[in-house]
Amino acid sequence: MCSSFISAVSSSLIVGKAGPMVHTGACIAALLGQGGSKKYGLTWRWLRYFKNDRDRRDLITCGSAAGIAAAFRAPVGGVLFALEEMASWWRSALLWRSFFTTAVVAIVLRALVDICYSGKCGLFGKGGLIMFDVTSENVSYHLTDIPSVLLLGVIGGMLGSFYNFLLDKVLRVYNLINEKGPGYRILLACSISIFTSCCLFGLPWVAPCRLCPTDTTEACPTIGRSGNYKKFQCPPGHYNDLASLFFNTNDDAIKNLFSKDTDSEFYYISIIIFFVTCYFLGILSYGIVAPSGLFVPVIVTGAAYGRFVGMLMGSHSNLNHGLFAVLGSASLLGGSMRMTVSLCVILLELTNNLLLLPLVMLVLLVSKTVADTFNGNIYDLIMKLKGFPYLEAHAEPYMRQLTVGDVVTGPLQFFNGIEKVSNIVHVLKTTGHHGFPVIDEPPISDSPVLFGLILRAHLIVLLKKKAFLPTPELIGIDSLKLFSAGDFAKRGSGNGDRIEDIEVTEEEMEMFIYLHPFTNASPYTVVETMSLAKALILFREVGLRHLLVVPKISGVSSLIIFVNPTVTTAYVVMR
Amino acid sequence: MCSSFISAVSSSLIVGKAGPMVHTGACIAALLGQGGSKKYGLTWRWLRYFKNDRDRRDLITCGSAAGIAAAFRAPVGGVLFALEEMASWWRSALLWRSFFTTAVVAIVLRALVDICYSGKCGLFGKGGLIMFDVTSENVSYHLTDIPSVLLLGVIGGMLGSFYNFLLDKVLRVYNLINEKGPGYRILLACSISIFTSCCLFGLPWVAPCRLCPTDTTEACPTIGRSGNYKKFQCPPGHYNDLASLFFNTNDDAIKNLFSKDTDSEFYYISIIIFFVTCYFLGILSYGIVAPSGLFVPVIVTGAAYGRFVGMLMGSHSNLNHGLFAVLGSASLLGGSMRMTVSLCVILLELTNNLLLLPLVMLVLLVSKTVADTFNGNIYDLIMKLKGFPYLEAHAEPYMRQLTVGDVVTGPLQFFNGIEKVSNIVHVLKTTGHHGFPVIDEPPISDSPVLFGLILRAHLIVLLKKKAFLPTPELIGIDSLKLFSAGDFAKRGSGNGDRIEDIEVTEEEMEMFIYLHPFTNASPYTVVETMSLAKALILFREVGLRHLLVVPKISGVSSLIIFVNPTVTTAYVVMR
Repeated sequence: MCSSFISAVSSSLIVGKAGPMVHTGACIAALLGQGGSKKYGLTWRWLRYFKNDRDRRDLITCGSAAGIAAAFRAPVGGVLFALEEMASWWRSALLWRSFFTTAVVAIVLRALVDICYSGKCGLFGKGGLIMFDVTSENVSYHLTDIPSVLLLGVIGGMLGSFYNFLLDKVLRVYNLINEKGPGYRILLACSISIFTSCCLFGLPWVAPCRLCPTDTTEACPTIGRSGNYKKFQCPPGHYNDLASLFFNTNDDAIKNLFSKDTDSEFYYISIIIFFVTCYFLGILSYGIVAPSGLFVPVIVTGAAYGRFVGMLMGSHSNLNHGLFAVLGSASLLGGSMRMTVSLCVILLELTNNLLLLPLVMLVLLVSKTVADTFNGNIYDLIMKLKGFPYLEAHAEPYMRQLTVGDVVTGPLQFFNGIEKVSNIVHVLKTTGHHGFPVIDEPPISDSPVLFGLILRAHLIVLLKKKAFLPTPELIGIDSLKLFSAGDFAKRGSGNGDRIEDIEVTEEEMEMFIYLHPFTNASPYTVVETMSLAKALILFREVGLRHLLVVPKISGVSSLIIFVNPTVTTAYVVMR
Repeated sequence: MCSSFISAVSSSLIVGKAGPMVHTGACIAALLGQGGSKKYGLTWRWLRYFKNDRDRRDLITCGSAAGIAAAFRAPVGGVLFALEEMASWWRSALLWRSFFTTAVVAIVLRALVDICYSGKCGLFGKGGLIMFDVTSENVSYHLTDIPSVLLLGVIGGMLGSFYNFLLDKVLRVYNLINEKGPGYRILLACSISIFTSCCLFGLPWVAPCRLCPTDTTEACPTIGRSGNYKKFQCPPGHYNDLASLFFNTNDDAIKNLFSKDTDSEFYYISIIIFFVTCYFLGILSYGIVAPSGLFVPVIVTGAAYGRFVGMLMGSHSNLNHGLFAVLGSASLLGGSMRMTVSLCVILLELTNNLLLLPLVMLVLLVSKTVADTFNGNIYDLIMKLKGFPYLEAHAEPYMRQLTVGDVVTGPLQFFNGIEKVSNIVHVLKTTGHHGFPVIDEPPISDSPVLFGLILRAHLIVLLKKKAFLPTPELIGIDSLKLFSAGDFAKRGSGNGDRIEDIEVTEEEMEMFIYLHPFTNASPYTVVETMSLAKALILFREVGLRHLLVVPKISGVSSLIIFVNPTVTTAYVVMR
């Protein structure tokens, strides 16, 4: 019921399918990454190899790449989107894997298009691999067109950053409403959807009827659902240009705006109304409980904007309005998403117009640069709003002034090489940290030495399997024998055991666990005097979860600090 | 004279222009990176900001990207080439910068093409932005074509890896010859060039004359220098298909092979001869003292190979021979270069055929996978051969078994916070290391403490400027005042002062230098027990030059190890 409601709502909204597709792809990948779903019996043995952080992260990146590839039929663009926007930690292997993913997507897509070409699967087969084809044998633009394109880019950048600004504000309001419960969410979604519908059906009445052009190749007024000349309320032989934008799917609207040899089709008033409506409805539609993307709304809005600029230019420019629409989309995308290469390739794959590439690159550069002076890119804004603990790639200036030692706090929670069960249970229950340093103290070593890092999840496995020693002596038992690699596999989010669920009897509490076999003996460490900025770079570049801070070598006091980034506190003990 | 000789030689070889262009771009960037050339008066003040490792590396990456962008008129492909092949250390800022570079290239190119369109700059204006245009409204291929394409990919992968294998062997031989001196080099170049010329002019005699097709649009036999139907020795109304491949520039040959509706133009025997000749001449031409690329020879060879497969397929396939030629190039490129995304985009930008993308991706994947089972990619082979100290991105399995402590050797060369000039001079003269740890010992600190890392280059600057203290006491002098940031700027390769060039008098030898102000106080450090594999990853991901290895915290013995990767030895001292 919910999905049908959502689809009903979203069908009446200015929404895209890219966002949802990316989301879907990532979700499927995440599901695979946690070894399928036991609950629904969707699980395979071989999936267990992916049950670790790195593979899961890679899978999700590839999934999102596949999403873009499928949504826009832009395989290479998908890879680059994943590279530029999704992946916070990039490896060359990941490039190759995501390329493989999108290649499979491309081939399957092509095969399905091939099968559906006869039209037996509805609209899918239409258009083939290129969605908004604006191919033209020779796009003739000259140096004289550069200024107008630059202007387009500058204004597009401003509009894009303003789009982000408004979206940020709207999302804050929506969050307040959505927190009130599902009822409010549905109510919000419905109201937005009704409002949208009113706009879409009401506004075309504003536009006057136009006489059908005589020299057009396609039928006027349009027969069927998609076309350039919607009849709406007009008498025969007339069409309503605004209706032919509003009464289409977004894709068809984009097609109309991009299409060449239609310079005389649209009129200022209609384009302006369409632009303004899309601009604001696009912002309103995002963040409600319906799958509404960002890409397509921005593309359609930008197309209207570009078309408008093209009409203003009129005969002063060699570019036809369709190409201006493409550039307009590019400028608005660059202004809100702030991507360069990936947008460039996605647009290239969407429009299949290679000759336009230099102008598209120029527009993207200009609009991104202009927009960056105002605010951050849209994904960062949303991430901040959602409150995800996201570590920026670049270090803030103040971080150069701080050392790692300055940001850590105490007390340090650590375990000995042979630790009492009661201590472990107590620490796990009283702290939220995901990792703990293991320090060998006498009698294991002659003096306190940092042995390594052990994870909360692994400790919980140890407690669950009850790999206990009766005494702190190691009488040749090999606790590793009790475990298989699978026991330590990363669980799906929320599926991991919690310390509260584990019963430990009184006498077990008095027993010991030998931690060495289960400890990461070579964790990444930094000296306490390292600048915070450097530590941050280390974190981001190597893709760390935990970082141990060790003191300067000195005979007097040995200080061990443990920084846990996932929980943003750290702990110190002085010995 | 030399350049004219080189151009003369290379004009008669199966060579490309991509390699040289990339090289040129990188060289220009490197020149900028070292602040221009004082020798030729090509220097600007503002260039001094680039005089550091990171900016120079970025500049060179962008330069190579610009090279590809200019050579193939493929701006996006250039960025991806730089990302996938050139950059050993990738930052998001670099993506944006290289994109900017190639965008400028694209716009300038487009402007020049625009100016030269009338043909006043020779052949440059021809062809516009797309070099080998194989656009076709609808490329109709179906699932039935997949097997043949897969086969093409597999064989192409084998051919590609064999290409690498042979090139490796040939280059080893060439190195032996080239070492003998410039005379031998020129001799080698000449002999290869003569041999090539003999092949090119001799072989067409093998091919019989063909009757001109009646249904062709272009003149037959060809008038002018480039065309599909070269007359060569044939009577009027006839053409020699082999000559029309050999007597063209590589670009024109590729154009001919890629061109559609010419399925009946070429014959088995000619294509086979052409393929074999190019395959081996391409290998022979690389590594002599003429600028001979890798890309174009491989593309032309691959095109011949693909065309041949297409002819074998004949009517069994829906693809025309021109498209098979494109796929053949893709397979051979994938088999020798082993790149995926960048090759895909470069081919896309070269041929402007988006509909072929799924097949190109498929072929690239297959050929790369097949070839990877045999040997490494061509650039790695060449780099190994040249003996560059290149650190692989991935850790070898044995590295997981070793700790950093295992690979370091002694003795450690280090300096105190206040160090005697004579010691510094002695150490710099007796070792080749580029960095040294600075360790504070009594009286500066109560016990030995690692303060940081100081670079050889900076020490030499200190010695040159003679920032000496008469006594080891710090009587409030600020040695920093003597220096500006410019003094420590990275010099161009070979321009840096050498320790031998610095005179230090006897009494200065007895003086001291206070190193703290010039020391990097927060170098990256690892604990001696960290596995070598992890240390390697740290090196690669963070882009380090030096890595300090510190001992485990322990009261008994504190051990400081210093690993210097540029010199592949390391040093230990026990206290």
